[in-house]
Amino acid sequence: MKLELPEYKDIIKAHNLIRDYIHHTPVLTSKSIDEIFNTRIYFKCENFQKVGAFKFRGATNAILSLSEDEIRKGVGTHSSGNHAAALSLAARMKGIPAYIVMPRTAPEIKIKAVKGYGGKITFCEPTLESRETTMKKVLEKTNAIFIPPYNHFNIISGQGTAAKELIEDTGNLDIVMAPVGGGGLISGTATAVKGMSPETKVIAVEPANADDAFRSFHAGRIIPSVNPDTIADGLLTSLGTLTFAIIMKKLDDIITVSESSIIYAMRMIWERMKIIVEPSAAVPLAALVEGKMDFSGKRIGIILSGGNADLNKLPFTQV
Amino acid sequence: MKLELPEYKDIIKAHNLIRDYIHHTPVLTSKSIDEIFNTRIYFKCENFQKVGAFKFRGATNAILSLSEDEIRKGVGTHSSGNHAAALSLAARMKGIPAYIVMPRTAPEIKIKAVKGYGGKITFCEPTLESRETTMKKVLEKTNAIFIPPYNHFNIISGQGTAAKELIEDTGNLDIVMAPVGGGGLISGTATAVKGMSPETKVIAVEPANADDAFRSFHAGRIIPSVNPDTIADGLLTSLGTLTFAIIMKKLDDIITVSESSIIYAMRMIWERMKIIVEPSAAVPLAALVEGKMDFSGKRIGIILSGGNADLNKLPFTQV
Repeated sequence: MKLELPEYKDIIKAHNLIRDYIHHTPVLTSKSIDEIFNTRIYFKCENFQKVGAFKFRGATNAILSLSEDEIRKGVGTHSSGNHAAALSLAARMKGIPAYIVMPRTAPEIKIKAVKGYGGKITFCEPTLESRETTMKKVLEKTNAIFIPPYNHFNIISGQGTAAKELIEDTGNLDIVMAPVGGGGLISGTATAVKGMSPETKVIAVEPANADDAFRSFHAGRIIPSVNPDTIADGLLTSLGTLTFAIIMKKLDDIITVSESSIIYAMRMIWERMKIIVEPSAAVPLAALVEGKMDFSGKRIGIILSGGNADLNKLPFTQV
Repeated sequence: MKLELPEYKDIIKAHNLIRDYIHHTPVLTSKSIDEIFNTRIYFKCENFQKVGAFKFRGATNAILSLSEDEIRKGVGTHSSGNHAAALSLAARMKGIPAYIVMPRTAPEIKIKAVKGYGGKITFCEPTLESRETTMKKVLEKTNAIFIPPYNHFNIISGQGTAAKELIEDTGNLDIVMAPVGGGGLISGTATAVKGMSPETKVIAVEPANADDAFRSFHAGRIIPSVNPDTIADGLLTSLGTLTFAIIMKKLDDIITVSESSIIYAMRMIWERMKIIVEPSAAVPLAALVEGKMDFSGKRIGIILSGGNADLNKLPFTQV
């Protein structure tokens, strides 16, 4: 079966569709971080996006791409958090219900956010199997349309609009980096970047403790995560068929990073930039902390994927 | 003795002098915070200023207002942190030494910052007396010029440039609020606001646990703090002669707030705006949390004074 993959024209189309509903987020720079790494880093601040994460782009594009009739009964999804919040707000914007299946272990801040945006939550066990069976039951009962968190043409096209704005605002970059979990952000990013600036390298960064994308990329086939365990709770999911296919076709490399480097990078962003990012968003900068590539002298775009850190469970050492 | 107080023209002069050295910080708004309070709040983000606080404005103005000959031997000050960091960076910019007397109990992040900006630290006991005697010794030994943290014509004029930028960027406001400690920020703010928009109310907000400005304002004479104890560690100092005189002349009101309201407001800014502010910067929003005035329907400017929160000692409850 041939998969239909989004191309750059689909990202342009998505951007035109969602432009009036999303925030055009700012690109920030930090002189002190640039001095540490001898780089020029452009941070695309999706922590300032609606619902505090890039996920609002994809969810909005997915909903706005459906006909009024198709979404009359509402939409549904399972998600560890940000996609659920994003779909809930995008659905409320259209005046339709959003049915959300969430693991009962999801961070409290994300549960509160989904409720705040009007999502109707059904809790499940924190396993893929429980998520899927619970979701199936909810969809059968409601006749809502399923909008998956990442393995979806319009979700990927929507996520790619962040990188499109980044390059439009900064001009050409040597490297663009984003974290990889299920792969929605990185595959949209790669599609946008290679469409706009083919010479720019696109690099995914992944926690070593949830390295399914790294292993899949090198094996040439999808190897799902087994019991991933990382502070970057947005990156626990494994690649899907669409995101894997795009990654194989467009990505230049995948780098893995340790938990301690993620926390170090997160703290660097908080202390030096005075902005709040969630652990997943700090994963690309952790690759610079570890020095796993030669970044010196480069113009680097980093997508700060979200800002929904749980303030009750911060990883900074108490002294 | 008649005190010479800065007027709006002095703030214009300060702004022209320091403009190329400071950040013109952004003004941010938050739809969700506005919905909570039924207001339109413009947050002037001095947490994004160089050294992470408004203090860089005053320190830069003080140093640039002196002749090359006057500052040849360097500058010195005592400060609980942000003024010390600001003076150190402004001095380094001019290639002169900065001698800093700091209480040994100052937050580690502020000690590290001063060292990072090249300040030469002498530690003292956390009492006003120890600060002053230690400072005197250091100045006698070095012949450096003393630049006090707030009770100084050029410091006040420099701090007023934040409110000047705020009003230039937002147009007229009903109310402008800032925290009050020694009074440098609020007196500069009041001078700027009343010079630009005499109808705009200027309101200081102060921790109830360090309410010397509140008591002084109502008594009509300076009543220093005795053992102030607040999480807002930038607001422990008492008013000076200049800042008190300006406050009596220009301020509309002073509101005091509880420690729990400060922490609640700080958390609200972190969670909803995804930016890091230190406890002192959250003090004005705490007045809205407490509902001590009728803020409904108002256009309010709030100066977020700084972002140097100690990540090792955050006040959020662990659950």
